[in-house]
Amino acid sequence: MSATDAGTMTTTFPNPKKYNFTQQTSKWQDIAAKTQAGLKGKIPKEWLVPESILATKEHNVIPIFRTCGLLSDRELEITDAEDCTVILHKIQSKAWSAYEVAVAFCKRAAIAQQLINPLMDIDFEGGIQRARELDEHLASTGKVIGPLHGLPISFKDLTDVKNMRVTMGFSAWAELYSKEDAVVVGALRNAGAVVYCKTTLPLVGMMLETASRLFGRTLNAHNTRLSCGGSSGGEGALNGCNGAPIGIATDIGGSIRAPAAFNGLYAIRPTSRRFSYKGNSLEYTGQGSILSTIGPVGRSLRDIELICKVLNAAEPWLYDPAVMAKKWEPVGVPKKATIGVMYWDEVVMPHPPVQRALKTTMEKLKAAGHEVVEFKPYKQKYAWDLAFKLYYQAGSKFYYDMMAQTGEVAFPAGLKFIERARQVEDIHELIKLNKEQRQYQIDYLAHWNSTALQTSTGKPIDALLTPSFGSASYPHDYLPWWGYMTVWNLLDYPTFILPITRAQTSDVKDTAYKPANDLDQDNYDIYDPELFENAPVCLQLVGRSMHEEQLLSVAFAVDQAVKA
Amino acid sequence: MSATDAGTMTTTFPNPKKYNFTQQTSKWQDIAAKTQAGLKGKIPKEWLVPESILATKEHNVIPIFRTCGLLSDRELEITDAEDCTVILHKIQSKAWSAYEVAVAFCKRAAIAQQLINPLMDIDFEGGIQRARELDEHLASTGKVIGPLHGLPISFKDLTDVKNMRVTMGFSAWAELYSKEDAVVVGALRNAGAVVYCKTTLPLVGMMLETASRLFGRTLNAHNTRLSCGGSSGGEGALNGCNGAPIGIATDIGGSIRAPAAFNGLYAIRPTSRRFSYKGNSLEYTGQGSILSTIGPVGRSLRDIELICKVLNAAEPWLYDPAVMAKKWEPVGVPKKATIGVMYWDEVVMPHPPVQRALKTTMEKLKAAGHEVVEFKPYKQKYAWDLAFKLYYQAGSKFYYDMMAQTGEVAFPAGLKFIERARQVEDIHELIKLNKEQRQYQIDYLAHWNSTALQTSTGKPIDALLTPSFGSASYPHDYLPWWGYMTVWNLLDYPTFILPITRAQTSDVKDTAYKPANDLDQDNYDIYDPELFENAPVCLQLVGRSMHEEQLLSVAFAVDQAVKA
Repeated sequence: MSATDAGTMTTTFPNPKKYNFTQQTSKWQDIAAKTQAGLKGKIPKEWLVPESILATKEHNVIPIFRTCGLLSDRELEITDAEDCTVILHKIQSKAWSAYEVAVAFCKRAAIAQQLINPLMDIDFEGGIQRARELDEHLASTGKVIGPLHGLPISFKDLTDVKNMRVTMGFSAWAELYSKEDAVVVGALRNAGAVVYCKTTLPLVGMMLETASRLFGRTLNAHNTRLSCGGSSGGEGALNGCNGAPIGIATDIGGSIRAPAAFNGLYAIRPTSRRFSYKGNSLEYTGQGSILSTIGPVGRSLRDIELICKVLNAAEPWLYDPAVMAKKWEPVGVPKKATIGVMYWDEVVMPHPPVQRALKTTMEKLKAAGHEVVEFKPYKQKYAWDLAFKLYYQAGSKFYYDMMAQTGEVAFPAGLKFIERARQVEDIHELIKLNKEQRQYQIDYLAHWNSTALQTSTGKPIDALLTPSFGSASYPHDYLPWWGYMTVWNLLDYPTFILPITRAQTSDVKDTAYKPANDLDQDNYDIYDPELFENAPVCLQLVGRSMHEEQLLSVAFAVDQAVKA
Repeated sequence: MSATDAGTMTTTFPNPKKYNFTQQTSKWQDIAAKTQAGLKGKIPKEWLVPESILATKEHNVIPIFRTCGLLSDRELEITDAEDCTVILHKIQSKAWSAYEVAVAFCKRAAIAQQLINPLMDIDFEGGIQRARELDEHLASTGKVIGPLHGLPISFKDLTDVKNMRVTMGFSAWAELYSKEDAVVVGALRNAGAVVYCKTTLPLVGMMLETASRLFGRTLNAHNTRLSCGGSSGGEGALNGCNGAPIGIATDIGGSIRAPAAFNGLYAIRPTSRRFSYKGNSLEYTGQGSILSTIGPVGRSLRDIELICKVLNAAEPWLYDPAVMAKKWEPVGVPKKATIGVMYWDEVVMPHPPVQRALKTTMEKLKAAGHEVVEFKPYKQKYAWDLAFKLYYQAGSKFYYDMMAQTGEVAFPAGLKFIERARQVEDIHELIKLNKEQRQYQIDYLAHWNSTALQTSTGKPIDALLTPSFGSASYPHDYLPWWGYMTVWNLLDYPTFILPITRAQTSDVKDTAYKPANDLDQDNYDIYDPELFENAPVCLQLVGRSMHEEQLLSVAFAVDQAVKA
């Protein structure tokens, strides 16, 4: 290949070496109708939920999985299992076959699809076939093929899964299929994972809600009036109703964490380059200031750790030059952790359910013998403003061009972002912004280290507990404050989400509260205890950059204290 | 501090929080005369070399250190010691005091300054004072303060050393002083290092020779008609004549390796972000495509490893958010290593002395029981063209503006680069180039992995041996081919330089050779066995990205084989 070929190759988009692609040029309405019908056609007739049940007015649709009558007791037992660790043990001990586990999750995902719309591609047949092969392997050799033998895993739209669709939410790309697996998919398959579906993301990408013209809106099963989060909203929604035992999501501004937090799940946004991003987002975007990261969303902390270990054990740096060559080295759970708590970011005051979650967690941490110190916010509003400029350094022309191909229009929140997006004037403006980011990272690290003055150990905090968001999800088509999540992308600190409680009508609105600014006012205005009832509330635990193992060790301590 | 303050702060250049700065506005000739006189004034009169000796016509000035009569036998024994490991042992065992070691190196550096001009700032008094304190500490406590107790270390111009000058080679910045130490300087000082001088770099920065209007030209002590290398040319020149036991250099395109290779030294260009770059180059440049790295240049492989260990043990990631949090984990020296050899890069055929070095090393490796396989070049010319565009993505206006302040003009080779430099049109061009880099990294890693098909182990090569350069240094004001070095910056692979032999008049020119292209023709034309006589010849050993420990383990095997 000549130098010229290489240059041409990388500018052809989508790259024909990596994708089978038929450009769609009809109106988006026609493409969407055809695509959604095709997707529905992949659900066996006997798994269709009766129209009468779909017409429910309940906002919490979780009970329907049990009441609809489509899932057997055994299938309910399998899909409602405590976590992957339990499922894997059951398969390994032959109490459950990989086949019946695969069928149960395919069926539950099919029901979820009809209730909350989290899927954008389906391969139930392939998944079930693979599960059969795994059962045969175990029967004939007496051995599992790897630590994830028979575990169904769901993947997000933008993650390449061989022969499955990838759209980035654009109708123009409805008929675009990956020719090969992303590095993470290959690693998980090699460990025994069963691939059976891919999940939705929002039009124009980086959004904390999930709606596209192509696939429609994905709902939150716990409260359909609220967002399921985004951009990995399909993962959050599907895993949130046990339609998958675990899923893989990506995060450049909150896209792993918002879906996890809004659906009551565990998740980690690792440091960028800790795991392989090769084979995601069609191609590397070239924006190098804030890198997207990939990580698991699931039911338990030990499951999250398991996936991290498997992804690391595959030594992805041997195949993806961007991955940090750093072995996973577990750290023991601390008996006495030192934990900073940031009550609010001085921009948006969290809603009462979030405040309650933070307060009760602090009390439980203290009761469990941990040290809790106050952590002062550090220029969190500045961080968001800078992050926004860096995200949209290339402007938003690409989105308009893509949508123009089929006449589709972004949803209100997405529109606000792409309208505000401003391409940098020139390279010098970009360098100035990158310098600002570097300085903020340096200053924040010094700020973190300065907590040594507050702790009894004389050392900086082991981890930082913060609201994961200013609210427990939010209503559709509202553009919320992202700052609680995005600052950690700008800083590139690993961040863990863990479930604490649910919003209750007894979390009354503080009518005496005076909002500090317009963003705070907006967030204050949307709170209504009746509207948010039953919404899961999670918190966010933040660690030092590249210290995933240390973060998880503190997360185990926090999780144990919360559950005590 | 408000968001606005932070924005302003980072755009003030040089940052007044970090530097004491008096802008120079005279003509460069006046600034240079004053600056050089000031530097000379810091050399004690009794260390001045007689004019008769300075008038030597010999091109190899190394013998003068012994013949000039300024260094005592003891001082010659100290400065000509095998390596730092020996020196540290002598100090620790009180055979030598840190004081006499400091005096000896200060004196030898002073003589070097008069012969080859490698220094741009001097603090002999401070270094000697620190050595006295260390002796007192050892005497009173019986303990060394750290693993480098009493070891003199030289630093490059662009590395911040508190209260010492930093100029980047610009006359306009002749009176610019760091207010604090760079992270690496602090780490080495804490380990016991003695700081006594800083060394030259070239005007307009990224050059593989070292000449500035402010300080003049730095020469190669082994052959003054040839370049001492650059941009860390002062480090190469000073260490090359034992004016320092070890030095710290930086490398974005060959700037650690060219000076090491041209002066017969050991050195490592680590993967970027393995050690801290905080406090170098005045500020982070914001160009994020090819990152500069920092590493030691010295007399032995074990010394290089020692410095790597000390820098890592300081846990720089706790202070510099860009550093990879990755502990140093030594790997045993392999009994049978598998080593790829790239004979040439299909662009420029190395000169006969380099070919001989490669050939004899291969033979010795085989004799020592190692496996040697041929490694095919992979688009090395394309790599250089891409790297050049990425280096100069912000254009060269900055250099012209800086030089215009004092009326100075770059030297011929530097001029060629800044004249060719072209600022990217816009962010989209930059993204395209970054994508090309990413794709080249992916393809090269696959190419490296494909060597598994050639080896008897069925695994890819452990390391790759290549010419470090197309020649053993080169004449002044010539612009050579950088490709042998720069490709590893583009790929971000760690790269080790180790000495093999010296050019001899018996390395005759191959008069039958037909150059493959203009670059090859140029390189062919400059070869003259008489001109290159006595020039050190080093080779380059390349490892996988982020695998410094593994690279050093193979380097130990190669070094042992070469010396056997």
